[in-house]
Amino acid sequence: MATRIGKTLITDKKPLFLSSAAVAGKKEGEGPLGKEFDKIFEDTTLGQDCWEKAESFLMKNAVMTALEKAGKGMEEIDGIFAGDLLNQCTGSAFALREFSMPFTGLYGACSTMALSLICASLAIESGGMSTCIATTSSHFCSAEKQFRFPLEYGGQRAPTAQWTVTASGAAVLSDRTDNNLPYIDKLHIGTIVDLGITDAANMGAAMAPAACKTLSEFFRDTKTSPDDYDAIFTGDLGLVGSGLLKELMMREHGTELGGNYFDCGLMIYDREKQDVHSGGSGCGCSAGVLCSHILKSMKEGKYSNILFMATGALMSPVSSKEGESIPGIAHLVNIRRGERK
Amino acid sequence: MATRIGKTLITDKKPLFLSSAAVAGKKEGEGPLGKEFDKIFEDTTLGQDCWEKAESFLMKNAVMTALEKAGKGMEEIDGIFAGDLLNQCTGSAFALREFSMPFTGLYGACSTMALSLICASLAIESGGMSTCIATTSSHFCSAEKQFRFPLEYGGQRAPTAQWTVTASGAAVLSDRTDNNLPYIDKLHIGTIVDLGITDAANMGAAMAPAACKTLSEFFRDTKTSPDDYDAIFTGDLGLVGSGLLKELMMREHGTELGGNYFDCGLMIYDREKQDVHSGGSGCGCSAGVLCSHILKSMKEGKYSNILFMATGALMSPVSSKEGESIPGIAHLVNIRRGERK
Repeated sequence: MATRIGKTLITDKKPLFLSSAAVAGKKEGEGPLGKEFDKIFEDTTLGQDCWEKAESFLMKNAVMTALEKAGKGMEEIDGIFAGDLLNQCTGSAFALREFSMPFTGLYGACSTMALSLICASLAIESGGMSTCIATTSSHFCSAEKQFRFPLEYGGQRAPTAQWTVTASGAAVLSDRTDNNLPYIDKLHIGTIVDLGITDAANMGAAMAPAACKTLSEFFRDTKTSPDDYDAIFTGDLGLVGSGLLKELMMREHGTELGGNYFDCGLMIYDREKQDVHSGGSGCGCSAGVLCSHILKSMKEGKYSNILFMATGALMSPVSSKEGESIPGIAHLVNIRRGERK
Repeated sequence: MATRIGKTLITDKKPLFLSSAAVAGKKEGEGPLGKEFDKIFEDTTLGQDCWEKAESFLMKNAVMTALEKAGKGMEEIDGIFAGDLLNQCTGSAFALREFSMPFTGLYGACSTMALSLICASLAIESGGMSTCIATTSSHFCSAEKQFRFPLEYGGQRAPTAQWTVTASGAAVLSDRTDNNLPYIDKLHIGTIVDLGITDAANMGAAMAPAACKTLSEFFRDTKTSPDDYDAIFTGDLGLVGSGLLKELMMREHGTELGGNYFDCGLMIYDREKQDVHSGGSGCGCSAGVLCSHILKSMKEGKYSNILFMATGALMSPVSSKEGESIPGIAHLVNIRRGERK
């Protein structure tokens, strides 16, 4: 049985990462984490005839690779928890329609990877499922088309804007008890925070207050501080948002986020060389970084206790056109490796 | 601990409906269930300046009414599981941004109410949450604007088309053990079924095969048949889809859906008088019918063992324009009242 302290849930079964896989596009392949992805697609269309199908193809690939690495067949999966940024979450639905797995569609914007891990963990924790998949995807071209301008228009991007990552990550979670694999120790579902930011080209600023709320409440619930973790990863506040998070954590809570704090949006690209302005975003960003670099580093023993907090901006192009501000949210999981406590 | 038979999960804690509330628009108020809703809004705008805000206002009202009926404050809610049909699920996000509750955004198209009940049940079953809310909404005008044509255009509707219901339902689920309230006994998360239907004006046909799969797998897992239940409710196959479901169940499984089978899309309107073609749809439809009529009938002792299966069409206007077929899904919960088994 999971237990609750404040808003933080401590798992009992400690759902472990049986495997994870990340697939990405050309630009991501050229970035600092390029060598860590399972597959790089040099052609942005992935051989599909539209961007939406290309995105679905990404997720399909990530899930199939993760299954293969876990040595599991589709029929062994008790549930898949998936989401993406496309209207009506069609990225996930079309990616997974041939997989005969009980399907839970999620929407948390760029926070979805943490949310899918949380929902999969709750399902395992309930005793009703043994093996689940958590997955998300995003694609630069489908996101630009839907949220901003058609690519052909060649619109200028604001310096605060982030670059939607073309990637998908998938993780197979299990109630097995092997001691050498990373596992989910704690979950924290975020609450919506909206401080009135209306600039859709500055999502980092809209999400930072939600990230601050989740992180500070998690520290309060667990009586821990940043120093208790080997690394803290946010996904994806970018340069502007992660700067704001540091400032907010210090100003509101006197907590310093130091050298062990990283943002997936800043890790996936080389901002000096890759012209991505404030960094990466999209729910494939944190998913891709988690399911390659982060979990790999944990398995190699580099980290044994980390926080993965994905942030999302819960707006739509319609709500922004209607003058609405941008509600932010941040979901967090504490991943550990080693002896189970 | 929940247990699993096939794809069906049997709850251990038997999450109960502490309260439920349904609010609806004028047309729904004039329908056969009009007197059962907690609130009817005569003005379709709900006093808001756009349809999207009107939809959010509906959900906000449903949640607040359900909380009031449960005698619970916002701070007593461990998690809210919510979804709607709008792009990026902004109906839910904007409805709930002032409620400081851990928020899980879901997308299952018109199947979302069953999915939100399932996810809330899993959270309770995990031991990590005690009191959760499940809620969904839809609004005729925001749905028409987004999925079909602007209202001002006055487009003709196909005879197979369904009418999106303006309503929201919310249920407060709890791990309490009072014996007189309806509770969730079994859960069944559906798998995606896509048989190649491409007509977005005939969603019933696209969803019926998924409904058939979920229902027949549930009967197989539980070794039960339609006669074992006081009532079976689908939401929202409408006239065309529910006819197809009956046909498929008979042809593929030799199972007759008889006089105890109802469709929420056919219950909410008077098809003779209200010009709704194939019946109601939208995730506010099954939510509104469940959270008013169905749960009320259970509390009054009319039913003690029912199936509630909500169906969804996982397409988007973009996927349809790209020539894609419509993936369907159906999620099911078995709700009982009386002695816990």
